[in-house]
Amino acid sequence: MKIRETVKNFSPYNPGTAEAGIRMDKNESPFSLPEELKGKVLGELEKLTVNRYPQSSGDSLREKLADFHYLKKDNIVVGSGSDQLISYSTHLFAGKHAVVTPPTFSMYRFYAELNGLDVRPVPLGEDFGLQVKKIKDNLNGAAVVFLCSPNNPTGNTFDRGKIVEILETGVPVVLDEAYGEFADETNMNLIKGYDNLVVLRTFSKAFGLAGARVGFAAGDSDVVGHMLRVKPPYNLNSFSLRVAELLLDHYELVRDRIDLLTEQRKKLYNRFERYSHPSEANFLLMNLDASDYLLDRGISVRSFTGRLAEYIRVTVGTKEENDRFTHALKSYISDQI
Amino acid sequence: MKIRETVKNFSPYNPGTAEAGIRMDKNESPFSLPEELKGKVLGELEKLTVNRYPQSSGDSLREKLADFHYLKKDNIVVGSGSDQLISYSTHLFAGKHAVVTPPTFSMYRFYAELNGLDVRPVPLGEDFGLQVKKIKDNLNGAAVVFLCSPNNPTGNTFDRGKIVEILETGVPVVLDEAYGEFADETNMNLIKGYDNLVVLRTFSKAFGLAGARVGFAAGDSDVVGHMLRVKPPYNLNSFSLRVAELLLDHYELVRDRIDLLTEQRKKLYNRFERYSHPSEANFLLMNLDASDYLLDRGISVRSFTGRLAEYIRVTVGTKEENDRFTHALKSYISDQI
Repeated sequence: MKIRETVKNFSPYNPGTAEAGIRMDKNESPFSLPEELKGKVLGELEKLTVNRYPQSSGDSLREKLADFHYLKKDNIVVGSGSDQLISYSTHLFAGKHAVVTPPTFSMYRFYAELNGLDVRPVPLGEDFGLQVKKIKDNLNGAAVVFLCSPNNPTGNTFDRGKIVEILETGVPVVLDEAYGEFADETNMNLIKGYDNLVVLRTFSKAFGLAGARVGFAAGDSDVVGHMLRVKPPYNLNSFSLRVAELLLDHYELVRDRIDLLTEQRKKLYNRFERYSHPSEANFLLMNLDASDYLLDRGISVRSFTGRLAEYIRVTVGTKEENDRFTHALKSYISDQI
Repeated sequence: MKIRETVKNFSPYNPGTAEAGIRMDKNESPFSLPEELKGKVLGELEKLTVNRYPQSSGDSLREKLADFHYLKKDNIVVGSGSDQLISYSTHLFAGKHAVVTPPTFSMYRFYAELNGLDVRPVPLGEDFGLQVKKIKDNLNGAAVVFLCSPNNPTGNTFDRGKIVEILETGVPVVLDEAYGEFADETNMNLIKGYDNLVVLRTFSKAFGLAGARVGFAAGDSDVVGHMLRVKPPYNLNSFSLRVAELLLDHYELVRDRIDLLTEQRKKLYNRFERYSHPSEANFLLMNLDASDYLLDRGISVRSFTGRLAEYIRVTVGTKEENDRFTHALKSYISDQI
């Protein structure tokens, strides 16, 4: 039995294993389902006929998402997490390589390699901004460019003009806006002008549904149509579809939580401004090598290797969690002096 | 924007669109969650922290499955439907083509093509049995052989000796036992003797959880280890994981339904023996071109093109559904005479 070389050399995704009482390592929402909705959610789950397959493409959720974003159903494809849509994206476009801009979300590399594309990294600049000229130099033979804005794990958004400059080349661009709800503005509306743009969104962050694994891609109906053809049937389960729909129906509750987290992020940033990179996401990248110290105090944050070896990525939690984090990190900083 | 040729020429999976009052077209269980379990399931779903990611590999379900099948956790990988495990299988093995044995489940072809393998069809013989010699003639350069037993859509199981003969060549074999619970015997235990065997199972059929999208693969820890490396994190959502675990914990309720459906299948087979192919699944393949006739009478069954153009595949339903189906099909047969 011969295993493919790609698989043998493959680095599996490592989501980090540190688990602590205060979990600030995975950019999850600290808020469970809104209390006001719990009864409704359970009532809906009770009604589901789980012995039947879900609608094959999650059309009911697609329609709600289209209404929500002033688009048509044909502009939307839903997936089991936006992960799955990253995977579909690596299947769609002709070309030999994917351009990625590290430090960024590692699943672009994961799926590109798995699905037979070479990976061409064009690192972000010193300010973690896009190096457009260098990206353009790497577009010959490119299948797709992956951009993440706000970028995980740096937190900053990319300049809209630079994104447009890349789009203008005609290369397919997948713009991951997993943290878009926490940003001052998004680039979703660019899909009306650029048929080579696919925007990814998720219910795992602002909507607080990481456990449900729901994401979606928005784009021109032509590229979405191709995505639907490579999408296997029934890719979303009935539970997750229904819960995502309910949260869209009650977006005002989601909005409250986004506002609260954004406010908390600003507070945390101000407290640790000297160490923090500007963020429009639900996390902060801090130039402090404090992950072990914090873990010893019951707080898990994300650490890295390579260029970010001296950094931690801190998910914004509840006010109480952020205060406990603040207390611990201040002690760490004092200890260093 | 250039779309890959493979994608342009790709035939999307068509699960059939006919929807009727009596749904006998998708090999689903006609039974919703056991009443005895509903309260427990909702109680468990209420407790889930859906804002947190699930355990990355569904380890808790893997452990329960291992116990259930007298295996170890390292022999099990879970997926969002066994579909996802078919996809992983097409990534794992070195080689240029996948061998499939039509008429069979079309997702083997779907994923093989999507993931860059050529597809070499070796049709089943006249009795829908394996043509082992012809399969062996096609193993040079093969990455993987997909077998489905009981086979969808023909219903028969393959001779164990023939499966072993293929395993003995050393080629990786994925044996899909999606309907294994309805068969007199399964081949799961062959994984202890053959490290080139991967057996697929699903919760969508006998367990009545098509809406939850849960499947698993069992195999030698080496091949399962490779599968875990290409598996993306968090591939199963928290709801589905928990519900699948609860059904395993109460397998006696599942077993009752399997027995009931098997008995009903035998009754239906006896009623239409002249037209029916022997089945060890929860469906019958019948040599009658009656799908439109039945749909007009509120019953959806699966129809085909090609070699099975004159056949229907009928999912075994509840006693009442099967009786209504029997009544309608008898009328169809009388009308033909």
